[in-house]
Amino acid sequence: MPRYTELVSSLPATVPFVGPETQERAMGRPFRARIGANESVFGPSPRAVAAMCGAAAEAWKYGDPENHDLKQTLAAHHGIPAASITVGEGIDGLLGNLVRQTVGPATPVVTSLGAYPTFSFHVTGFGGTLHQVPYRNDCENPSGLAAAAHETGAALVYLANPDNPMGTFVTAAEVLSLRDALPGDALLCLDEAYCDFAPPGALPPLDVTDTRMIRMRTFSKAHGMAGARIAYAIGHPDLIASFDRVRNHFGVSRIAQAGALAALQDTDWLARVVAEVEMARARICRIATENGLDTLPSATNFVTIDCGQDGAFARCVLRELVRDGVFVRMPSVAPLDRCIRVSAGRPADLDIFAEALPLALNRARNP
Amino acid sequence: MPRYTELVSSLPATVPFVGPETQERAMGRPFRARIGANESVFGPSPRAVAAMCGAAAEAWKYGDPENHDLKQTLAAHHGIPAASITVGEGIDGLLGNLVRQTVGPATPVVTSLGAYPTFSFHVTGFGGTLHQVPYRNDCENPSGLAAAAHETGAALVYLANPDNPMGTFVTAAEVLSLRDALPGDALLCLDEAYCDFAPPGALPPLDVTDTRMIRMRTFSKAHGMAGARIAYAIGHPDLIASFDRVRNHFGVSRIAQAGALAALQDTDWLARVVAEVEMARARICRIATENGLDTLPSATNFVTIDCGQDGAFARCVLRELVRDGVFVRMPSVAPLDRCIRVSAGRPADLDIFAEALPLALNRARNP
Repeated sequence: MPRYTELVSSLPATVPFVGPETQERAMGRPFRARIGANESVFGPSPRAVAAMCGAAAEAWKYGDPENHDLKQTLAAHHGIPAASITVGEGIDGLLGNLVRQTVGPATPVVTSLGAYPTFSFHVTGFGGTLHQVPYRNDCENPSGLAAAAHETGAALVYLANPDNPMGTFVTAAEVLSLRDALPGDALLCLDEAYCDFAPPGALPPLDVTDTRMIRMRTFSKAHGMAGARIAYAIGHPDLIASFDRVRNHFGVSRIAQAGALAALQDTDWLARVVAEVEMARARICRIATENGLDTLPSATNFVTIDCGQDGAFARCVLRELVRDGVFVRMPSVAPLDRCIRVSAGRPADLDIFAEALPLALNRARNP
Repeated sequence: MPRYTELVSSLPATVPFVGPETQERAMGRPFRARIGANESVFGPSPRAVAAMCGAAAEAWKYGDPENHDLKQTLAAHHGIPAASITVGEGIDGLLGNLVRQTVGPATPVVTSLGAYPTFSFHVTGFGGTLHQVPYRNDCENPSGLAAAAHETGAALVYLANPDNPMGTFVTAAEVLSLRDALPGDALLCLDEAYCDFAPPGALPPLDVTDTRMIRMRTFSKAHGMAGARIAYAIGHPDLIASFDRVRNHFGVSRIAQAGALAALQDTDWLARVVAEVEMARARICRIATENGLDTLPSATNFVTIDCGQDGAFARCVLRELVRDGVFVRMPSVAPLDRCIRVSAGRPADLDIFAEALPLALNRARNP
């Protein structure tokens, strides 16, 4: 066998998430409702779909490696210089490149216990040492993250805000306090995948003079383009330029670039999706209440439902839902794992969930 | 500033290639003929375009992280197990992940002097030490590569066959001799991006019991899907499984997966593109001859034209072509850089080239 690096030899061939298609193949039938990966079942903007179709015929051309047009439009949209934006293959791709720049063997990294597994996958993959801070009252714990960063001498600290998998948020003031409380050479990676669903007061103003924080935004959630693989990072131009040392320069699909550009311009569609998500969240809460379950307040496009018992019970509820054709997911660690996580669906998706949940609860209670 | 890794701090913010869009923006006008990046100007199969359009509306879903359907179809197509195939974000993405697995600080790596810059970008990016073997008679030099691998104790050896940027090829027997001549723990990375244009006898049979060689294939060239970002590697299942330790599992676009599946099934389109490329190559040779220039035999979708003088002269010819709206590229190092590289174009593209070449030569000869 070839000489793998010592680091790679030590890694498991792991998968951060099992995809719904894998589960469908195992079950031998498709899901009736796909409301488990916080995808936007409302779809991309029709203008984005048209742009992607147009670009498909032109897909013989490599995408612009500078992502120029999209970056210019994003810059105007956010009122920041284009040099403070880098475009990548989804936040997953950007996180991989950020970790690669800042994490080597045994570099201390701080995240929350139960937070986004793909971030942890990248940290482990580059040899970093993860320090995981428990949630506090189902929210990420900024002061705990800051304390852990000092104790461990962390180079990188990860915070998703609004949060996944709990759907909660911390205020912009708390985010900035966390940033200010970190060691001077630590970088705060603020994953804002769900920012379009956030309430006022959750998002710090963009400040591209700040070298202590980098922000991640995506077209995968509110813009409904998860399958196209396109996202961007916002930060100080020096932080952003550094991505050019390691990124796959021709890595962003031409089709995705065209779709993202059109999606960004269709503000009506975005507003409509946000309104649909709000209605869907309310409906998921009603369904939970009708079944005697509590829900967590959501600042995202999903609702986290407290199944009222322990992780074993919630896993049982989840398994029954999946068996019944409803794709949902759940947090991985206690005490978060007393919950299941249901993405905003169309009325028809949520009809199926409303029908399936009481059956799943009944089977979980009477195994 | 954050604590970058020592390795990343040492890297330049470099770009393996300047994109044609960057040149167009600098010139303030579009190219008249885009025949510089060995893209397939004949486009993707109409069936692939239709599949990509269909997938665009479904782009709210993440792509299947296992790339299951595409891998099954590729497996049947090649008569190999699906476990010997991994799908990635273009060969560029696969090369990055292969280098990450096998190359760390100061790991010796062997490639050809003037070969694919993106491979070298990845090796440098992971801290490896490049050993570059000169071409021999405008062909890559397998025995020279093998000797360098022994001298340096290389972990990884790169060979593009057919070759880019010269368009030449070595025989399957030479490839296998190279593999057999390597140190036992060295891995041969065989980049076969241009395999669909190769003459009989260039491609070794697929042998997925072989742990000493991994093959890279792409939908970017003959299949005309460079902008969709999808390619695959073929190798021993243990080599292939190892990619799961580091790859971005949800990194391949759903749209690209759908397009690739359709493209693979449209064998008529592929045959038509190969025939068009053959005609275009003949035309490029005629144009060169009419201008008193020699061409190299091509096993690819481009023709390398010997401008008959040194690198300075060829760069001058290239600059004049670019100024005149013809996007072409050239090899980067002497003596290869006496040549320019012209991709197979449609008749209209080559009409423009035929008109522009004598003017460019004249200007280069009479500056």
